[in-house]
Amino acid sequence: MTSEPAKDGLPMTDHTTKAFDVDLRELTRMIEEMGRLVERQIADSLDALASRDSELGQRAIALDPSIDALQHEIEEKAVLTIARRQPMAIDLREIVGALRIANDLERVGDLAKNIGKRVLPLSEDLHPANLMVGVERMGELVLGRIRQVLDSYANRKLELALAVWNGDEEVDSMCTSLFRELLTYMMEDARNITYCIHLMFCAKNIERMGDHATNIAETVYYIMEGRAITEQRPKGDTTSFAAMVAEKR
Amino acid sequence: MTSEPAKDGLPMTDHTTKAFDVDLRELTRMIEEMGRLVERQIADSLDALASRDSELGQRAIALDPSIDALQHEIEEKAVLTIARRQPMAIDLREIVGALRIANDLERVGDLAKNIGKRVLPLSEDLHPANLMVGVERMGELVLGRIRQVLDSYANRKLELALAVWNGDEEVDSMCTSLFRELLTYMMEDARNITYCIHLMFCAKNIERMGDHATNIAETVYYIMEGRAITEQRPKGDTTSFAAMVAEKR
Repeated sequence: MTSEPAKDGLPMTDHTTKAFDVDLRELTRMIEEMGRLVERQIADSLDALASRDSELGQRAIALDPSIDALQHEIEEKAVLTIARRQPMAIDLREIVGALRIANDLERVGDLAKNIGKRVLPLSEDLHPANLMVGVERMGELVLGRIRQVLDSYANRKLELALAVWNGDEEVDSMCTSLFRELLTYMMEDARNITYCIHLMFCAKNIERMGDHATNIAETVYYIMEGRAITEQRPKGDTTSFAAMVAEKR
Repeated sequence: MTSEPAKDGLPMTDHTTKAFDVDLRELTRMIEEMGRLVERQIADSLDALASRDSELGQRAIALDPSIDALQHEIEEKAVLTIARRQPMAIDLREIVGALRIANDLERVGDLAKNIGKRVLPLSEDLHPANLMVGVERMGELVLGRIRQVLDSYANRKLELALAVWNGDEEVDSMCTSLFRELLTYMMEDARNITYCIHLMFCAKNIERMGDHATNIAETVYYIMEGRAITEQRPKGDTTSFAAMVAEKR
């Protein structure tokens, strides 16, 4: 981590720098822990769906409060770190990035919980397993994207973040064709309607998880490059954090 | 706003305090601006749905980038305020609260955008208007809750925040009965299926907006009372911000 001029043009003392590094490492560790919980929650809810195991679905739902609590802890830790250490621009980006990623992970957790809630009604309804296959495949694809983007954050892999960012269309087109398939099935026989609606909501939840993987990829890019992924501006920190440092100097 | 001891046991100077108050007022103003945009977006998307006006639906969608940009501005402003002014516990809560509310408003904006996107397919499909009525009524109820909770934030009305927090069940039960009605209609005639699925997704989006109104009510409570709304602990700041101030003293 950097340790350059901070507040009022005075350099951060070694003491402050080290303390900041410790805070930042702890924040990164918390994000990684949150990421692991969310990955498990997605995997559990998808497995529960595939095996019509409503108990496993309940376990996925039960993970949600821990994930929400971690988000609040990360938020408090981030804010306290800023207040105590007054980091400079690049380090502020690290902290804002942590806040954004925690926020996206919390939303992904909510979506996984929503899938967990549909396992019970789906498991009571006996329908051909092949319809579920499309949802499962979509789920695996998105879980893979979540894993990749968390890897890109933990190990600062810009290329991997870009790959995730560029790969969202596959999920969206998978979702569209799945919806079409489910719709046909509903038209054929009214007894399929309830079942297919549940699957549609599951597919929509998975599609949105994919959107959050894209958001996280954008945040990793922002942390590493100091600008939005969509901008074609020349390199350099163009956020107002840079302005703050300039002002302070 | 308060202006008590800050960093290192030294009192904030008058200069710092005033600067903080200016920052905080600006942050509150930005939240209110974001709130107005989101209210308009909801109202437009609901009107578009009711009048099958796809152009108005597009206008609701077009508001989304401004709302997203405002969220990022609020985030940066909040972080810079903490770094520059190192506020004490109660003022940190104000800033964390602003971050959370901006976050919820951004999500509400996304949901309103989703409704806007369904106006076009719905307007092409001629169906009895009475089915739309349920969605409209739900939408009005939720828009009212969003307005109330933003009022409770702007004017620090704890009772109003509590009323919003306690009123979520009405939306949920409205949504459940609407789903039942739409399902019956789908079962009756397969030609209704596509139309009803769109309405179900609209209803689900509206229901989630209601959840965010509840979240914002929780944040208002947290800002004003220094603890979570669900906690029955005795009054007092029990967050780690209080610990920070204690540590600094």
